[in-house]
Amino acid sequence: MSDIKKYVAQHKDRFINELLEILKIPSVSADPAYSQDVMDMAEATKKALEAAGCDFVELCDTPGYPIVYGEKIIDPNLPTVLVYGHYDVQPPDPMELWTSPPFEPVIKKTEIHPEGAIFARGACDDKGQFYMHVKAFEYMVQNNQLPCNVKFMIEGEEEVGSKSLGWFVERNQEKLKNDVILISDTGMISNQQPSITTGLRGLSYVEVEVTGPNRDLHSGLYGGAVANPINVLSKMIASLHDENNHITIPGFYDKVIELSVEERAEMAKAPFSLDHYKKALDIEDVYGETGYVTNERNSIRPTLDVNGIWSGYTGEGAKTVIASKAFAKISMRLVPDQNWEEITELFTKHFEAIAPAGVRVQVKPHHGGAAYVTPIDSIGYQAANKAYTESFGVKAIPVRSGGSIPIVALFEKELKSKSILMGFGLDSDAIHSPNEHYGVFNYLKGIETIPLFYKYYVELAK
Amino acid sequence: MSDIKKYVAQHKDRFINELLEILKIPSVSADPAYSQDVMDMAEATKKALEAAGCDFVELCDTPGYPIVYGEKIIDPNLPTVLVYGHYDVQPPDPMELWTSPPFEPVIKKTEIHPEGAIFARGACDDKGQFYMHVKAFEYMVQNNQLPCNVKFMIEGEEEVGSKSLGWFVERNQEKLKNDVILISDTGMISNQQPSITTGLRGLSYVEVEVTGPNRDLHSGLYGGAVANPINVLSKMIASLHDENNHITIPGFYDKVIELSVEERAEMAKAPFSLDHYKKALDIEDVYGETGYVTNERNSIRPTLDVNGIWSGYTGEGAKTVIASKAFAKISMRLVPDQNWEEITELFTKHFEAIAPAGVRVQVKPHHGGAAYVTPIDSIGYQAANKAYTESFGVKAIPVRSGGSIPIVALFEKELKSKSILMGFGLDSDAIHSPNEHYGVFNYLKGIETIPLFYKYYVELAK
Repeated sequence: MSDIKKYVAQHKDRFINELLEILKIPSVSADPAYSQDVMDMAEATKKALEAAGCDFVELCDTPGYPIVYGEKIIDPNLPTVLVYGHYDVQPPDPMELWTSPPFEPVIKKTEIHPEGAIFARGACDDKGQFYMHVKAFEYMVQNNQLPCNVKFMIEGEEEVGSKSLGWFVERNQEKLKNDVILISDTGMISNQQPSITTGLRGLSYVEVEVTGPNRDLHSGLYGGAVANPINVLSKMIASLHDENNHITIPGFYDKVIELSVEERAEMAKAPFSLDHYKKALDIEDVYGETGYVTNERNSIRPTLDVNGIWSGYTGEGAKTVIASKAFAKISMRLVPDQNWEEITELFTKHFEAIAPAGVRVQVKPHHGGAAYVTPIDSIGYQAANKAYTESFGVKAIPVRSGGSIPIVALFEKELKSKSILMGFGLDSDAIHSPNEHYGVFNYLKGIETIPLFYKYYVELAK
Repeated sequence: MSDIKKYVAQHKDRFINELLEILKIPSVSADPAYSQDVMDMAEATKKALEAAGCDFVELCDTPGYPIVYGEKIIDPNLPTVLVYGHYDVQPPDPMELWTSPPFEPVIKKTEIHPEGAIFARGACDDKGQFYMHVKAFEYMVQNNQLPCNVKFMIEGEEEVGSKSLGWFVERNQEKLKNDVILISDTGMISNQQPSITTGLRGLSYVEVEVTGPNRDLHSGLYGGAVANPINVLSKMIASLHDENNHITIPGFYDKVIELSVEERAEMAKAPFSLDHYKKALDIEDVYGETGYVTNERNSIRPTLDVNGIWSGYTGEGAKTVIASKAFAKISMRLVPDQNWEEITELFTKHFEAIAPAGVRVQVKPHHGGAAYVTPIDSIGYQAANKAYTESFGVKAIPVRSGGSIPIVALFEKELKSKSILMGFGLDSDAIHSPNEHYGVFNYLKGIETIPLFYKYYVELAK
């Protein structure tokens, strides 16, 4: 057994308990009601980095929640790895669908996780995953295995668009200087088949408001005679896709880079069972853009999804009302080379243009980020691949993900370095959903694999 | 000054204060949280009928809220007027738009009501309006002016579809036997121009649920690859109207009675200013079915309006989620001779048929009722017209309303008598909306006018 395996076996219970403790803190960045909890979580992250062996840790003030920065510089001539993660979590609602309270973590066995999985909001995204790096770092420090310098940058606003992170990175380029950025905030194919995320989609997230009459109206007295904001909003949303599920916003696809036939053929080699996919989601069929298969639709193609809609009477029973206003939250996933700010503008212009007379429309941009691709011939990718191969006994597969980590593109622009996305989560972990969980196997395997990345990265960088 | 005018002048303050007291009871029938208040309001209604001079009053048990029944039979050979009203009210939300709390009534002056209006949920619909009948009855009893028998039937479930009323009426035909039914639960054109509602639209109210994946999903990892229930629901709702705003449900218009050119010309004579209408609602343009004008769209034509929609993340900030389920409350206003149960079936069948693969759809019928038309050559209509003419100094105009009082058709079927809709509300009273109010003028004028109806009805019936 290697040193790291021994160390993990020996400290396993403590590693799990430490994670359970931080999962109890409801650090929901989207909701101001939780602001003290987010601050408490920043403080807990700081303490964890100090305990793990950082020489210097601080909470860096930003216009929003603080960024936890820590470092251990052993030799300025050695490479520097910058670890990024986030200590904030998604809102837990709908609360009623959780089988155990989201901030009272418990370990339960599942079919995929016979050795147990930790159920809690943030278990996988991203507390469980960033904490693996803290524990892997602890191992390297305690056992004199740290082969290079390490910097940690753990933020508290990833789930609300990482606004302060951009502000911070722009102002601290020297402090954050590094050779490679290491992030565990994605998934892998399965516990038997590791994969490395080489592409991420960009994002444009907006909120729309449709206003009809200046007050709620009786649907009997006014129904049929005035524009009903809900009917109108539905119609406007419906019109954003054509019959082939192409997005109808003029100019939307102009900068989309189409993959070559060869690239698509390469993608198609990744193991995928449509039957299993449908069964896992309990759907009769998939649904999406004509001309692309499921694994293309959710990775190399841009999309438009409504993430929330609300208006009118939503309580028990019936109320015959025509609401004055209707609202929706809409996000678009983007691919290279779509520019998120340009897409937000195109959306806004189009949405305003299609509003019928009788309503007024307001589009409020929330946040966004660019898409990103990691070259698989980079030292970082190769080191990660060697680490997975040694740890899992099987080569990692490069995968383009449909998710967005907008700051990855920002890092490249501001810090001039590539991010390596070493995720250990699974699709079934239900991140952003009720009953989010993270396999105990995945957590411990992540801690074992990360020191191997450091080892191979420093070797390859020589 | 006539006797009734004197009586009203003398008891005005008491009449207003009595109404303010019952408006403080939040008798919201749609929400079980208010069930004790609804019961309290039934009790208060019983007491008011006793105090006004009924010989017999009782709370009649039903499968839902009780019906308050009261009567004064002075001579079995004289005609009997049955007064119908409802003591329940609409839910008050959205609460934040009320300028004063919905269940703390206050009198405030408005442009239309220089002598003041009572602001409270239920002020006009229907507490203020049914209570006029109680006070008019009090006057007739106190002053030996009651020319016939009176029965009161005040229910507590009008705002949730009057389910128990149907059950009650079917079982109590003898008890409820009458010559004419008198209802004040509608409006009139203005305080200078009284009108009598001669037509009502029917209603079919349903709730729909669209289920996609079996859990909320991350919109990055799944976006574009699965049917998003909100996008799908929007598309389905949008498809329910064509480009001319005709409803697309097959068979929907089959039984609609088209009005003749003459009838439409007669309707067009009612005073109406499109500019004023648009200004009052603060809309740039009206919106509706091609080929019909505003006053036709909201009275003689059937409609389909979404009354509520909800799904996904609706809190502050952004959440990148694909919801598992999306919901909407949808109501259709119907006209003669559409059958509401048939329309509910047609809707259900169509809505299920248009669901794309990848989602499941459930339609839950809430309630409904048939449309209704009162002949203007009936004794009841003529008596009402004479009463208004004497009270207001100007003849009442017959008007077809867009609203629904489903029980009016039920009364005709079960009790074989016509309902006379003597409403004293105004369109601007904001019923079903925040800041519902009822003019003090209208309330007192109603009390003055009602005894005249009794007088002329008994004269004409001889």
